[in-house]
Amino acid sequence: MTNQIASMIDHTLLKAETTKEQVLELCEEAAAYSFASVCINPVWVKTAAAALQETDVKVCTVVGFPLGAAAPEVKAFETKQAIADGADEIDMVIAVGQLKSGEEAAVLEDMKAVQAAAEGKALTKVILETCLLTDEEKRRACDLALEAGLDFVKTSTGFSFGAATVEDVALMRRAVGSEAGVKASGGVKSTADAEAMIEAGATRIGASAGIQIVQGETVTSDY
Amino acid sequence: MTNQIASMIDHTLLKAETTKEQVLELCEEAAAYSFASVCINPVWVKTAAAALQETDVKVCTVVGFPLGAAAPEVKAFETKQAIADGADEIDMVIAVGQLKSGEEAAVLEDMKAVQAAAEGKALTKVILETCLLTDEEKRRACDLALEAGLDFVKTSTGFSFGAATVEDVALMRRAVGSEAGVKASGGVKSTADAEAMIEAGATRIGASAGIQIVQGETVTSDY
Repeated sequence: MTNQIASMIDHTLLKAETTKEQVLELCEEAAAYSFASVCINPVWVKTAAAALQETDVKVCTVVGFPLGAAAPEVKAFETKQAIADGADEIDMVIAVGQLKSGEEAAVLEDMKAVQAAAEGKALTKVILETCLLTDEEKRRACDLALEAGLDFVKTSTGFSFGAATVEDVALMRRAVGSEAGVKASGGVKSTADAEAMIEAGATRIGASAGIQIVQGETVTSDY
Repeated sequence: MTNQIASMIDHTLLKAETTKEQVLELCEEAAAYSFASVCINPVWVKTAAAALQETDVKVCTVVGFPLGAAAPEVKAFETKQAIADGADEIDMVIAVGQLKSGEEAAVLEDMKAVQAAAEGKALTKVILETCLLTDEEKRRACDLALEAGLDFVKTSTGFSFGAATVEDVALMRRAVGSEAGVKASGGVKSTADAEAMIEAGATRIGASAGIQIVQGETVTSDY
């Protein structure tokens, strides 16, 4: 199981204070363990793309992260810039505040702007930040993600109050059916955590504890 | 003193889940109390600019917020977009990770890109996220901010481990002399807090507790 899990892991380091040396170490680890990708901030995309060019590991980065409160034009521009810099996967944050304000047309437009910028060039995921949403808002967000043509829905940024839960992953899987992937991210720290997420319907795991997950260890904190 | 303090306050609401209704309420409060500005996420700049057009209250927004890890091209684009949407003041986050990596040329380039985008159109502040920096890094960041021509140095995003301290404000004031403003932000919750920051050299206060500050009340939490 752990080899299968490895191929589902986005090996993640998104702290503001992350250094170039840490990004290079993350890339080495991702190659050694055959993780799906490294997930790093946009400022490090060129560094990661250069480090991983001889490998099968993808470069995943984040857009409008972690608040989701950038203008849609900026999220689209950030997507294009990230792809130009070497990103293969784009994890955008949904316009949380507009979703909470009932402005669904704006939320959809925001997702479509990113999808259009990435279409045919990069895989797209939209982070719902589930801990801030009601179950009805989570379902509506999944509907909008499918309508915008995004490839994955994803639970959490890891920067808000809560992390991925089995219940949210299951809700999101029911909402998107087989039309999109589901990424569980935030708080996944052990093999057991990862297996529970996959059982609930996750097809990708975002974690800073990827090595512990595939080695069957448990870590007590991932910050 | 509190009337003077009011004119130094950026009335702030930057939570991801902030709604349009809350932004409009923030604008009404800022006008009623004659605060310097409202400080809101980019997605709400048009809303705030429309609400405040008959007032003297400025619209302040954030760029590359809160991690500072967007690409410099994206921070520049976000600045231009925010100004087009109606922003008068731009609070960018420094490239924290590159500063921690010793890549000072990149940190300077990043600041210059934002300053060039805002030059003559908006006031600029750079958030150092002091809780993540050594004192030497704080001083170097201030030097680079002066070299890039930014108008203010600012302590904190409010989204990391620590908030503004009197010591950091004093350090920053010594570093920039009279060449730039100093904004104390994060954790300023009472009249006494604000007065201590001003005494240490702050010329602007970023707070979600602006009303309590000018009314002489103390709040126990600002999240």
